[in-house]
Parts: sequence; structure tokens; C-alpha cells
Amino acid sequence: MSKQSAAASGHSLWSKMPKASAELFALTYGSLVTELIRDYEDVAEVNSQLDRIGHSIGIRCVDEFLAKAEVGGVHVPRCEGLRETADVVARIGFRMFLGVNAEVGNVSPDGSGFSLFLHDNPLSIFVELPSAEEGGLQARAGGCDLSKVKYSNIYCGVIRGALEQVNLKVDCNFVRDILRGDDANEIRVVLKEVLADGAGDDYQEE
Amino acid sequence: MSKQSAAASGHSLWSKMPKASAELFALTYGSLVTELIRDYEDVAEVNSQLDRIGHSIGIRCVDEFLAKAEVGGVHVPRCEGLRETADVVARIGFRMFLGVNAEVGNVSPDGSGFSLFLHDNPLSIFVELPSAEEGGLQARAGGCDLSKVKYSNIYCGVIRGALEQVNLKVDCNFVRDILRGDDANEIRVVLKEVLADGAGDDYQEE
Repeated sequence: MSKQSAAASGHSLWSKMPKASAELFALTYGSLVTELIRDYEDVAEVNSQLDRIGHSIGIRCVDEFLAKAEVGGVHVPRCEGLRETADVVARIGFRMFLGVNAEVGNVSPDGSGFSLFLHDNPLSIFVELPSAEEGGLQARAGGCDLSKVKYSNIYCGVIRGALEQVNLKVDCNFVRDILRGDDANEIRVVLKEVLADGAGDDYQEE
Repeated sequence: MSKQSAAASGHSLWSKMPKASAELFALTYGSLVTELIRDYEDVAEVNSQLDRIGHSIGIRCVDEFLAKAEVGGVHVPRCEGLRETADVVARIGFRMFLGVNAEVGNVSPDGSGFSLFLHDNPLSIFVELPSAEEGGLQARAGGCDLSKVKYSNIYCGVIRGALEQVNLKVDCNFVRDILRGDDANEIRVVLKEVLADGAGDDYQEE
């Protein structure tokens, strides 16, 4: 699948999706993050809960993706390698659920990993995190160091869950985040294992 | 403002809003409700937390609404009575943030209250609640009676918060819910008080 046809499929699927306001979505997601912070009072745990929640959403998203693509007559070819998979995630996945593109970059020469660069992060439009210094003060005062929140970590869970559904076990990390003062939003995806078809199914006796 | 012009304004504002997938929004909202249930383990408290979260979102939504309407050249006249306010909430508010209409009905003869009927509830697309019987069993087993969750209670908070920003103090309740086996989604809004302009501002000495 070429980059161009992936992008065209993404736009076509996006035009058919029922939609909600991106701002309402961002505010609702913000309420979820706030609730987790209030509940767990531990930044590492909040980051891992966001990943867990994303994982179960990702599983649902793949089902929606395949169903919508079939109904809409959008061709989704078998991805021949991780690079093609990356293009489908970036140009169809992000487009059809969020209406934005991600760019693929930093592809490992051995094909074992890639990065997704997100120019617009719809989750973070209303958000500011404290600086590392302010976060350190919060922590010393007995609170959470909110500068360490991986605010958009749900993306990593979503990608992990979605790829697991197509038999790819990956590690996924939000390695650079504009919210945390970095100069880009970079999600790093590293392939751990290609699961055998039906590996997740129940064991069947002969 | 006529019903028709409110509806036209709603559609015009909706077309200009940045958007996200309604399914992703519904799944994210579902994660928030799940998190609250896990956290509070008490249905009444979950319902009240959803209302509280909605309230703070509603305050933001009004700001967005007024800003977008101004930029977009959409005329938002002063609402002359509660009936007109109801039309603006139903035909502009619901449309611009969720892409759906609500219908106004059951307007009290004295103008003190109205209902919003929601034919499509974008929050509930993936949701099933247990029946009252199943919920009773859950409660007897020491769990939460999830049949009593006001799943979409965030709407009530949003409406309450939004109207408070325009000086109307209201009570808002999700009185009938298709998810709970009712034959319609009805949100009841009752006017409690018209606040004086600037009542929420800091007291200023002469």
C-alpha cells in the first residue's frame, strides 16, 4: 500500500465517521486524566493506567476500522512489513479517529521499529504541565510531580492494543512530548514479536 | 431567535468545529465512567461526580460557544425567556459539540422548566447497563448496583455549568434514559434563580 493510497483511505474513512467536537473530546479526556491522578496519586501508575485504558480502546478501534473499511469499500491490503504497518497506523488510524495525520520517521534499518510524529495533538489543546522545577516542588511538598505525567500516553496503549489485534506485539512509548518541553511529539514503536495466527485463540485439541 | 435560525446557527458552528471520532469519544467517556465506578464504588457518588465533571466542562463550553459564534459571525441574540434558552441549548449547544439535535418539550406553562429529548445519545453507543434485577443481585453480592448508574449524567452537569455562565441557575436531571429501559432520553431542566449580572464576580468596593 502506497503512502498516497493510505492517506486517501484515511480521508475517505474519516469523512464517513460519526463525529464529536474535538474540544469536548479533549475536555473529557482531561477529566479522565485528572480522575486518575486524584485516584492513584502516583505519576508512574497514572501513566501505566492511561496505557492500559488505551489498550482496551485500541482493540475496539481495530474492529471498527476493519468493519468500516469493509462497509466503505476501502481496500486494506495485508501489510507486508513494519514500514507499511506504520503508514497504515499513521495515515489511516490517526486520520480516521482523530482527523489528523501522523508522520512516520526514524525507521530502524532492520525494520524493527519506527516513530510516529504528531504535529497536532488533539488531546493536549487545553493542557499545560508544570515545568520540571515546579513538578519537583510539588513532589517535595508531598504531592505528585505532574511534570512527569505522560499526558497522552493513551495513544501508546491504543497503538499497542490495535497492533496486537493484527498479531504484532509491540512496545510503545511517548518518547518526546511538546507538553513536556520537547520540540516534537514522538511515539516510538518497537516490534517485539510477530504472533502466530490464532495465537490468542483457545487451544484446540486434535 | 426562531427555532429555524437556531438550528441554522447550530449547523454552521458544527461545520467549523475541529472534530474527533464520536466512537473514540464514546469509548473515552466510557473509560471515565468505569474509572469513577472503580474509584468510588458507590452509584450515587458516581452520578454526582459525573455531574461535577460536566459542570466544569459546561463552563468551558460556553466560552468556546461565544468565542466561536463571534468569530464565525453567527448571531447569538439575548435569550428573552427560558423557552428561547431551551432552543439555543437544544439546537446550537448539542449540535455544535455533539453533532446531534435535542428536541425541546414538556415546557412548563409558567416557563419555569423544560425537557430536552435526545433521540441519539452519542455517549451510549457501546453501552449496556444491567437490568434492575441483575443490578439488585450485584448489590446483594456486595458490589455496585450498576443498573442505577446515570450513565450520561455528564450532560446535566454541562447544561448546569453552561447556563450558570449566562446567569441562569438551574436544576438538571436525566429523568428518563433508554439505557435504563425507558422509552426516551429526557433531561429535565428547572430554573431555580436568575442571577444578577456579575453576581459571580468579585465584590468591588466603591
